[in-house]
Amino acid sequence: MKPKNLGKWRRTHLSQEIDSDLAGEKTTIMGWVTDIRDLGGIKFFILQDFSGTIQVTAPKAKVGKDILNEIDSISKESAVAVKGEIAKADQAPRGVEVVPSEIRVLNPAETPLPLDPTGRVKADLDTRLDARLLDLRRPKPQAIFKIKHGAVQVIRNHLTSEGFVEVYTPKIVRSATETGATLFPISYFEKEAFLSQSPQLYKEVLTGCLDKVFELGPIFRAEEHDTRYHLNEVISADIEVAFSTKEDVIDILEDLIVNIFEEITEDHEEELETLEHEIEVPEKPVPRITYDEALEKLNDAGMKLEWGADFSIPEQRKLREIVGGLFFITDWPTEIKPFYIMPHEDDSKLSHAFDLLYNEIELASGGTRIHQRGLLEKQLKNKGLNPKRFEYHLKNFEWGLPPHSGWGLGVERLTMALTGAENIRETVLFPRDRKRLTP
Amino acid sequence: MKPKNLGKWRRTHLSQEIDSDLAGEKTTIMGWVTDIRDLGGIKFFILQDFSGTIQVTAPKAKVGKDILNEIDSISKESAVAVKGEIAKADQAPRGVEVVPSEIRVLNPAETPLPLDPTGRVKADLDTRLDARLLDLRRPKPQAIFKIKHGAVQVIRNHLTSEGFVEVYTPKIVRSATETGATLFPISYFEKEAFLSQSPQLYKEVLTGCLDKVFELGPIFRAEEHDTRYHLNEVISADIEVAFSTKEDVIDILEDLIVNIFEEITEDHEEELETLEHEIEVPEKPVPRITYDEALEKLNDAGMKLEWGADFSIPEQRKLREIVGGLFFITDWPTEIKPFYIMPHEDDSKLSHAFDLLYNEIELASGGTRIHQRGLLEKQLKNKGLNPKRFEYHLKNFEWGLPPHSGWGLGVERLTMALTGAENIRETVLFPRDRKRLTP
Repeated sequence: MKPKNLGKWRRTHLSQEIDSDLAGEKTTIMGWVTDIRDLGGIKFFILQDFSGTIQVTAPKAKVGKDILNEIDSISKESAVAVKGEIAKADQAPRGVEVVPSEIRVLNPAETPLPLDPTGRVKADLDTRLDARLLDLRRPKPQAIFKIKHGAVQVIRNHLTSEGFVEVYTPKIVRSATETGATLFPISYFEKEAFLSQSPQLYKEVLTGCLDKVFELGPIFRAEEHDTRYHLNEVISADIEVAFSTKEDVIDILEDLIVNIFEEITEDHEEELETLEHEIEVPEKPVPRITYDEALEKLNDAGMKLEWGADFSIPEQRKLREIVGGLFFITDWPTEIKPFYIMPHEDDSKLSHAFDLLYNEIELASGGTRIHQRGLLEKQLKNKGLNPKRFEYHLKNFEWGLPPHSGWGLGVERLTMALTGAENIRETVLFPRDRKRLTP
Repeated sequence: MKPKNLGKWRRTHLSQEIDSDLAGEKTTIMGWVTDIRDLGGIKFFILQDFSGTIQVTAPKAKVGKDILNEIDSISKESAVAVKGEIAKADQAPRGVEVVPSEIRVLNPAETPLPLDPTGRVKADLDTRLDARLLDLRRPKPQAIFKIKHGAVQVIRNHLTSEGFVEVYTPKIVRSATETGATLFPISYFEKEAFLSQSPQLYKEVLTGCLDKVFELGPIFRAEEHDTRYHLNEVISADIEVAFSTKEDVIDILEDLIVNIFEEITEDHEEELETLEHEIEVPEKPVPRITYDEALEKLNDAGMKLEWGADFSIPEQRKLREIVGGLFFITDWPTEIKPFYIMPHEDDSKLSHAFDLLYNEIELASGGTRIHQRGLLEKQLKNKGLNPKRFEYHLKNFEWGLPPHSGWGLGVERLTMALTGAENIRETVLFPRDRKRLTP
């Protein structure tokens, strides 16, 4: 069968818009065919679109032979358009069905399919990602992306209502913001350039003119490791606020996170049910412990960590047991945080950095930034970076750059927390890791 | 003078929140110092933040000597915090001022500055971009970014309310969407990869599962030419719609553009005044002419173009004179459009592509896409591209990819139209062109 053009046909209803109150009305529906059945006197199939599904029922006594032949020839997952009449039907899902008068197969699917989109046959993640289009018709991935979309909207609306300006900073950059080890190099005409690993330097500068900025955009890290929490391209929600300290931006993050959990719980009950995932709205205040307190708790639990050690999954998992699901760790050792983080005035080994942890994952990290050029140069050197390479950035600190603070929140890790997805690849439409670049 | 930390000080009001009704109340304001004056018995300066400006007035009779000394020591564009009392003042802008009780210079600006942020001294674009932080404190650039932010919000809200799902597609990609000539290569571990020049292929695939998608994200093109309309990194607003033709997505674009002009006219009167730019809300229907009609008009006007010629600035400028400010050109020659554009069924030399022009600029382009694998392979070969490199993409066409259409709208070019900016660099916070990569 050959693909057809749409011609004059146009969708009149989404599947979810059809209910039994519309019985007797004409409709044109379009979507993908799942579950074709022939019960002798009656043939039917389920038509799926992004809104949901609707049953198309062809009783042999009521429809023409051409319709029955057309149904026989349809392969599963083909794109079809159906003209017909809406009818009450007690046995159909939602008590409603469409009796077809004309069917047009717009794009027939080849058989066999590499994946069962109904989700009844389990498939491993590689198989799913290799046939991502079919995978994204499955109920669980659809639920994940509906929730991710919802979370992104809450982030944007929340920050906009707090007076933040949304900005777009460059993704082609000249310098590393942390260390060069995880950068992707680009051939930029005759110059050396990199993919941006964070909007850090740009958003800091923008506090000196736009006051409060946020960005929702891609960041890039050449992650060598194949973990379920890392990818080479993810979306980061970043804020930076003029005339603020870490305490102020922790408050903003606390309000935002609670707001996201509230809104997702309220608006995405159906998707959470599909995912068989329960979430609990965190209570305010979200616990805040210092690095020193966290270290003490871990050592009391027998973990034997030296002061200055970074925490990874085992430590974070242990802290979850002790402190709870969601908490901040503040005042990290300066040495394990980036050059732009402000050290304590009275003890430069401690810094005004913080992380937000959810279960065993680091969801966000941020802090008070250095706004003094001299101190920033010193910290660059301490980290083995060359201040000369940062001259364009450093100049801004001579032009009245205000004290400022901010954070970055991993949108995919947040989506994992909200959906129960066990691998970050499930939360990205077309994930990028070391082995997976196609398409 | 050394930069200071914020300590316990926090902003209580933005400058615009202060009006004469608040006279007698205490306030803490923070921002940048412009226009310091000493009139003998009185010293004053203007404090600017992103919301606007407020006058800080220190009459010698009322404030302490330390305050007067502090004001003497402040350099223009320093970041300062002022505690004081709000007072009515007929001579001050907006009839209100702040009488300081304490001033803290949070980050003193070095002198001389490379740029006069009041905008009184003209500066060329290169100088402005070299000191972008100072430039972005000037009224006109601030107005441009307020309008750009407004336009982006209208785009997102409009499409969301129409049932579109916002998506993020990969920026690290394996294949070109048009030709390879303008791609930036990336070292992606041991593989060859590129920066995405358009979300085209991904958004097409997503119509097969998410129905109606949009993306607002960066696109990258290695533009060799130094024109006022081109940059190497810009933001593209892209949509793609399942079960639709170019006529449907032209309607969506028409509604959106009119909505943007309406909302910007309504909400950004002040910014348009600052920019001395008038915009007119386009009337519906926006004129639609075919390529053949456009060619005839141009040749009638003496331009002597062969059928199949592409239009550039001179032709677009002439058409503007003949057709008007905003119009669509539809049904372009297949040969000058990308491989994924659907040719006419009855005349394959013509295609279902369209452009939206505003004055002499191409604002958007789109069309009905090919949804038949066989035809797509043929068109790839016609364009000199190797279908084998697109196998991952082509597979999707065997899995019921629906007929679909869409467009991409250049957010910076739109911002030029809305603000009267004469160079696209003025509409990007940190523009990227062949010579300008720093920072």
